[in-house]
Amino acid sequence: MKSIGVLARAGLKEAGPVLRNLLHFLQERSVRVVVEERTAALLTEHEGCSVVPGAQLPERADALVVLGGDGTLLAASQLLEKRSIPVLGVNFGSLGFLTEIALGELFAALQGLLDDRYSYDERRLLRATVRRPGRPDVTRDVLNDVVITKAAASRIIELDVGLDGAFVSTFRADGLIVSSPTGSTAYNLAAGGPILHPALPALVLTPICPHMLTNRPLVVGDASTIEVRLVEARDVEVHVSFDGQQGSTLTTEDVVSVTRSPRVLRLVRAPARDYFEVLRTKLKWGESTARRR
Amino acid sequence: MKSIGVLARAGLKEAGPVLRNLLHFLQERSVRVVVEERTAALLTEHEGCSVVPGAQLPERADALVVLGGDGTLLAASQLLEKRSIPVLGVNFGSLGFLTEIALGELFAALQGLLDDRYSYDERRLLRATVRRPGRPDVTRDVLNDVVITKAAASRIIELDVGLDGAFVSTFRADGLIVSSPTGSTAYNLAAGGPILHPALPALVLTPICPHMLTNRPLVVGDASTIEVRLVEARDVEVHVSFDGQQGSTLTTEDVVSVTRSPRVLRLVRAPARDYFEVLRTKLKWGESTARRR
Amino acid sequence: MKSIGVLARAGLKEAGPVLRNLLHFLQERSVRVVVEERTAALLTEHEGCSVVPGAQLPERADALVVLGGDGTLLAASQLLEKRSIPVLGVNFGSLGFLTEIALGELFAALQGLLDDRYSYDERRLLRATVRRPGRPDVTRDVLNDVVITKAAASRIIELDVGLDGAFVSTFRADGLIVSSPTGSTAYNLAAGGPILHPALPALVLTPICPHMLTNRPLVVGDASTIEVRLVEARDVEVHVSFDGQQGSTLTTEDVVSVTRSPRVLRLVRAPARDYFEVLRTKLKWGESTARRR
Amino acid sequence: MKSIGVLARAGLKEAGPVLRNLLHFLQERSVRVVVEERTAALLTEHEGCSVVPGAQLPERADALVVLGGDGTLLAASQLLEKRSIPVLGVNFGSLGFLTEIALGELFAALQGLLDDRYSYDERRLLRATVRRPGRPDVTRDVLNDVVITKAAASRIIELDVGLDGAFVSTFRADGLIVSSPTGSTAYNLAAGGPILHPALPALVLTPICPHMLTNRPLVVGDASTIEVRLVEARDVEVHVSFDGQQGSTLTTEDVVSVTRSPRVLRLVRAPARDYFEVLRTKLKWGESTARRR
Repeated sequence: MKSIGVLARAGLKEAGPVLRNLLHFLQERSVRVVVEERTAALLTEHEGCSVVPGAQLPERADALVVLGGDGTLLAASQLLEKRSIPVLGVNFGSLGFLTEIALGELFAALQGLLDDRYSYDERRLLRATVRRPGRPDVTRDVLNDVVITKAAASRIIELDVGLDGAFVSTFRADGLIVSSPTGSTAYNLAAGGPILHPALPALVLTPICPHMLTNRPLVVGDASTIEVRLVEARDVEVHVSFDGQQGSTLTTEDVVSVTRSPRVLRLVRAPARDYFEVLRTKLKWGESTARRR
Repeated sequence: MKSIGVLARAGLKEAGPVLRNLLHFLQERSVRVVVEERTAALLTEHEGCSVVPGAQLPERADALVVLGGDGTLLAASQLLEKRSIPVLGVNFGSLGFLTEIALGELFAALQGLLDDRYSYDERRLLRATVRRPGRPDVTRDVLNDVVITKAAASRIIELDVGLDGAFVSTFRADGLIVSSPTGSTAYNLAAGGPILHPALPALVLTPICPHMLTNRPLVVGDASTIEVRLVEARDVEVHVSFDGQQGSTLTTEDVVSVTRSPRVLRLVRAPARDYFEVLRTKLKWGESTARRR
Repeated sequence: MKSIGVLARAGLKEAGPVLRNLLHFLQERSVRVVVEERTAALLTEHEGCSVVPGAQLPERADALVVLGGDGTLLAASQLLEKRSIPVLGVNFGSLGFLTEIALGELFAALQGLLDDRYSYDERRLLRATVRRPGRPDVTRDVLNDVVITKAAASRIIELDVGLDGAFVSTFRADGLIVSSPTGSTAYNLAAGGPILHPALPALVLTPICPHMLTNRPLVVGDASTIEVRLVEARDVEVHVSFDGQQGSTLTTEDVVSVTRSPRVLRLVRAPARDYFEVLRTKLKWGESTARRR
Repeated sequence: MKSIGVLARAGLKEAGPVLRNLLHFLQERSVRVVVEERTAALLTEHEGCSVVPGAQLPERADALVVLGGDGTLLAASQLLEKRSIPVLGVNFGSLGFLTEIALGELFAALQGLLDDRYSYDERRLLRATVRRPGRPDVTRDVLNDVVITKAAASRIIELDVGLDGAFVSTFRADGLIVSSPTGSTAYNLAAGGPILHPALPALVLTPICPHMLTNRPLVVGDASTIEVRLVEARDVEVHVSFDGQQGSTLTTEDVVSVTRSPRVLRLVRAPARDYFEVLRTKLKWGESTARRR
């Protein structure tokens, strides 16, 4: 690890002092620091680090430290298209599903990274393609989910779903979530979907407020290709969004297909914290009072 | 019953012959027929009936026949503000929660109405008021629900809910449904809410895809006043809709309050069909194969 | 208030010192103390208080202090059949739905009680009657719920439900909960039922793991009478329980009917804590970080 | 295919004539028929077929026809431990998840089987082991699920769950379902679990009526080993069942571990019917009225 990139949530003032300590820590160890350009606004002087646009981080750094929360890490994951460097997510306050490293653990985790004594999860991304007649395809990789949803004032929508060419069903609902295991603890959970272990090579289709009460989340292998079509669009405005970022409006001519992406996110784990600990803490499952192991 | 009003779903061609038979049937019995003006487009000649704007139906007719589905009846209920005449809802095809009378039962039901041998449910409406600083209040009566919801591409929203002045909770969700018992089998059910018996003097607050998994539907007496405020509106567009019809956009300055309306809808029952039969049929609960009563 | 009864959870050692302080506090104020007999085991000497069987508490005391948790208060509520004296529920550790008074608040709350400066909720009970051919009826009042459920190893059961003589549906499920508003935050919530405000004159029928996914909780007025019959009992063992206490085994000849009881529980409120605060704390709904009221 | 086994649901009288036609059909084609011994009671004379105990079917037959419903097929799957011959499930009346072949399709499907023109699904089984100190381990293969559940009158139970040695959580619930993809549409669905595509190498852990509302179904790879321990057993009777058949009572000393079994069930598909068609029909999802493919 000769070079570490740093990206902080825009406007996160508390990140300023952390960033300065981090620079100091890395420079003492002769590691180059590459700071994303908006993040650099947190520094009064650039103190020997390089400042680059976010898109250049993967080629300029051997690992990326993200200061912020899950939303910041989700956005950062979009930048790593060309090269999947390890990402160390640091939360400011409450534990995140993706930013599981607390401020107090940052420097120990960083030292582990420099010493090549660290473990990471490979979080698989999903690849969504929107095919629209007469227009170029739009392809996006997502870490969490692809969401197709009606605009607020629209009636219920009808979506035809296919799996590898077989017709699954027509969902009459407010919308549909296609979520990765990583995204399963995000919007999918709010819509009633199950938790998928991050290592499971699967995705889950979860209808949002389905009109048909028997429409239930469906978990399928991520080598499958999901195809979603809008059946009818009278008086209905329908959007597709990628990791919470709005994409295009959909018409009945368009097809949204989702399958696994060749890309993975390498998420550095906190020492002595596993996936289930994060899950228990975030979902307030608590520990058993009776456990004495 | 000297005069019967008729309203059909706009563009419902199958209603044409039914409407003509209905005119004939009523005229033979010396009952005046008052046809809503868009409905009259289904007739080639107006054949001795009066044609009036929908808003005049309650003062011109002693009862209203609605030809269409639940959506048509929902819209028709908006017209009866001045006078709550009995409404006979006739479905074209599948049984409705509100339009429980089948075509084959129409004339028997109508004869019952003329002979004053009919029973009806009183379905209570909810009254929603949107208070906005510097602008006149907007008041709307709904038969089903008041829905506050984010626009498709917005982030999750935060809504503060009060009940008769007490703070209930802040809901982080896609939105919130305040539903009457009648509306409880509509959108509320899709969002995970319970069924409320139509005679129960209550309303139900159901969060839509709440971020907090322990946020659950809450049933309260309809004499209570629910107050909903948008806590934060950064990058968020929030709408309020009434019985599925879009109302205004909300800001953090606005307050939406909901309580029972003094108005009721008098819904004529099909002879020999009760609420639970409609429920069982609509929700496909089936009959017990083992029942021998 | 000339006499205060005290009942503690059996074997709750931490209640010993509290009980002694409580005796002292009341005796200083010349209030007689009546201690339930198993509770008296926590005292080394009886220090001037009367010791009585639980069943005599309502006639011997003007109010009852319960030391324990919701389960203890639930059991205590069974003792107040003859006279509904106010009940002050004190929790040891975590806030209860019924035992909302913390140890630190006990003496202030008690002083309020003695000074007649206290507020209370009237929690309505439900009355269940099991009618069995050739055997006397069994009638039980419950504060929370009547639960009909299959034994662990049995197949799914079929239950016919009626409401005031009308057939509701046949539920194929693991069982059925008939819950009061007070019970709605207990087992009902775990089974997917809604929260009912404690003042709502209603009850909720919630099927447990229904085979038919469209079977949903149904809220009805508590003046109605619910009747439940077991449709078929081949290889099935079915039990009815009252507030979690096992009652009889059911056969297809039996009828369980539930309606509101004339009895109420008068639950003393903590000063400066309302129902929704308890709800928010127990369900970890949290407060809005953004609220500034 | 030189020999076909036949097993019918015990006491299914309608199976008699079908069985006789089946014998005739197979004997005309010089195929030996091996009838399970209780099934043979449906025949007045044994008409040239062999009658064997169920356990001998896999060694005596090259394929098995099951006449009954999903329950019958589930029981039959237990017999194929030594050799996984193809199973053709025939339903009497309503389509089954496992018995998807209708009576009218039986002979065409059978001819396909004889001609080696048939397709089948490989449904993976789960292997459950109950380890009890001082007693031999009990190992059972299940097609649907392993269910740990409290007896009717018991309090809520606490179960510690581990995954490949990592602690997952303590579930306070009525019980816990560990379901295969095949079982995901059975009890798991009633308890709120998701649908798992039958080809997904996964299992789902679904708590039954969890006390903690944030406890949600968890889907993990089936190469993992789930370990479940009862934390506390005061006044609690807890059972483990395998595909709905009661197994042993559990104590806090016991461990139930579940992982995939090396065994698969080869389920013959109906010609021209796929998994999603069965799903849509069974769950009454309906077809889109708008689909024109």
